[in-house]
Amino acid sequence: MDKRGQFITVEGTEGVGKSTNMAFVKQWLEAKGHKVIHTREPGGTPFAEEIRELLLSNREETVDSHTELLLMFAARCQHVYQKIKPALEQGVWVLCDRFTDASYAYQGAGRGLGFDKLKELEDWCLKGFKPDLTLLLDLTTEVGLERAKKRGPVDRFEQEKVDFFNKVREGYLKIAQAEPDRMKVIDASGSVEVVQKHIEQSLISFYQKVQSA
Amino acid sequence: MDKRGQFITVEGTEGVGKSTNMAFVKQWLEAKGHKVIHTREPGGTPFAEEIRELLLSNREETVDSHTELLLMFAARCQHVYQKIKPALEQGVWVLCDRFTDASYAYQGAGRGLGFDKLKELEDWCLKGFKPDLTLLLDLTTEVGLERAKKRGPVDRFEQEKVDFFNKVREGYLKIAQAEPDRMKVIDASGSVEVVQKHIEQSLISFYQKVQSA
Ligand SMILES: Nc1ncnc2c1ncn2[C@@H]1O[C@H](COP(=O)(O)OP(=O)(O)O)[C@@H](O)[C@H]1O
Ligand SMILES: Nc1ncnc2c1ncn2[C@@H]1O[C@H](COP(=O)(O)OP(=O)(O)O)[C@@H](O)[C@H]1O
Ligand SMILES: [Mg+2]
Ligand SMILES: [Mg+2]
Repeated sequence: MDKRGQFITVEGTEGVGKSTNMAFVKQWLEAKGHKVIHTREPGGTPFAEEIRELLLSNREETVDSHTELLLMFAARCQHVYQKIKPALEQGVWVLCDRFTDASYAYQGAGRGLGFDKLKELEDWCLKGFKPDLTLLLDLTTEVGLERAKKRGPVDRFEQEKVDFFNKVREGYLKIAQAEPDRMKVIDASGSVEVVQKHIEQSLISFYQKVQSA
Repeated sequence: MDKRGQFITVEGTEGVGKSTNMAFVKQWLEAKGHKVIHTREPGGTPFAEEIRELLLSNREETVDSHTELLLMFAARCQHVYQKIKPALEQGVWVLCDRFTDASYAYQGAGRGLGFDKLKELEDWCLKGFKPDLTLLLDLTTEVGLERAKKRGPVDRFEQEKVDFFNKVREGYLKIAQAEPDRMKVIDASGSVEVVQKHIEQSLISFYQKVQSA
C-alpha cells in the first residue's frame, strides 16, 4: 500500500468501554482491507511499557504533577517515533487506546495544570502530530466507575475521587467542542451493541471523508 | 536556621572525579556550620531513582532522544519539588552530583538536540530554578574515560564514543563561558589533592559572596 495509514484513538474516563470496543473498531477497519495495529498509552513499546509501570504502580511518595506529565510524554515520544509514525508511513492504520487528549483531560483538567501548559509540552514533543480521528466514549463518572470496579483491582489513577473524574470528563468534552471534526463524542451509556452502533456511524462518516480526500 | 540554604552542583564528563570530590565539598561546608545534604541526578528520591534505573539500563530498543530528555526532566522535577526546594527552604544546603547543566551538555550538545530546545523544557519544568554555584570538573575525554574504565563496568552513557564526550565537554565549557559567575571551571587533571585545592579556592570565593549578600 502506498498511502499513509490513518491514526485513530479511543478516549474517555475509566470504565467507559475503551478496551471493550477496540476489537470492534479493529475488525471494522480490517473488513475494509486495511492492515491495522492496535496499541495503547501509556505504553506501546517495551520501553514505554516500563514507563507505564512506573506511572501506574501505587507508591507512598507523592508524585509531582510535572513529573507525571513528563513521564506520560516520555512514553508517548517513544511510542510515536519508534512505532506509530513508522507504521503509518508504511500504510498501516494505527488504533490506540488513549493518546495526547488523555493528558489534557487527566493532567490538564483533572490535576488542574491547565491546557496552555499542556499545549507547550505537546508542541515540544510532537510538533503538531495528532490523531486523524478520536472516538470519545462519554458516560457519567458514576456509571463508569461502577463498571471499572466490577472489572478488578484499581490502579493509582482509578483510586481518585468522583470529583476528579468529573473534571476529566469536562476536559474531554471541552476538546471535543474545540475540535469537532477530529473528536467524535459517542454516548457510551447503552449496551455494548448500542454503543457499537454509535461507533460504527462515526467510522462510516470518517471513512467517507478519507476515501474522498 | 532562618536563611535559605545554598544549592551547589558538581558537573563534568565521565570519570572527571565528581563522586570522588563530593565528600570533600560536603565536609568543607559542614565545617562552616551548615547542615548539608548530598544527592545526585538522575535520582535523589526513591521514585526518581526508579526513573534513573530506566535511563541507565542497557536495552535493545533505540531510545528516542526526546524520550531520554523527558525522563531526565521527569526525575529532576520530582527531585526539585519533593526534596531540593523543601530542604533549601529549611536552611539546609544541598550538594548535587549533576543537574540541569548535564542535560544541556549530554542531550543538548552531545546528542545534538541544541540548547534552545533544552531551554524550553527547562523553563517549562523549573521556571528559573538554578544552582547558586556549579563546580565544573574539566578534563580531556581520554583521561576521564581511562579513569572511568578503571572504576568498573560501564552503563549506557559510558559506552558512547570519545567524539560524543568531546561534544559534551564543549557543551559544558560553553555554559561556563555564558555564566561565569555561577559556573566555575576546575582543572581536574591533577592528583586528588591538587584538584581539591582548586575546588577549595572556588568554595572560598563563593562563600565570601554569600556571606556579604
Ligand atoms: N456498554 C457497556 N455496558 C455495560 N458494561 C460495559 C459496557 N462496555 C464495557 N463494559 C464493562 O465495563 C468494564 C469496563 O470496560 P473497559 O472496556 O475495560 O473500560 P475502559 O477501557 O474504558 O476503562 C468492563 O468490565 C466491561 O466489560
Ligand atoms: N584526581 C584524580 N586523579 C586520578 N584518579 C582520580 C582522580 N579523581 C578521581 N579519580 C578516580 O577516577 C575514577 C572516576 O572518578 P569518579 O569520582 O567516579 O568520577 P565521576 O563521578 O566524575 O564519573 C575513580 O576510580 C576515582 O577513584
Ligand atoms: Mg481500558
Ligand atoms: Mg560519579
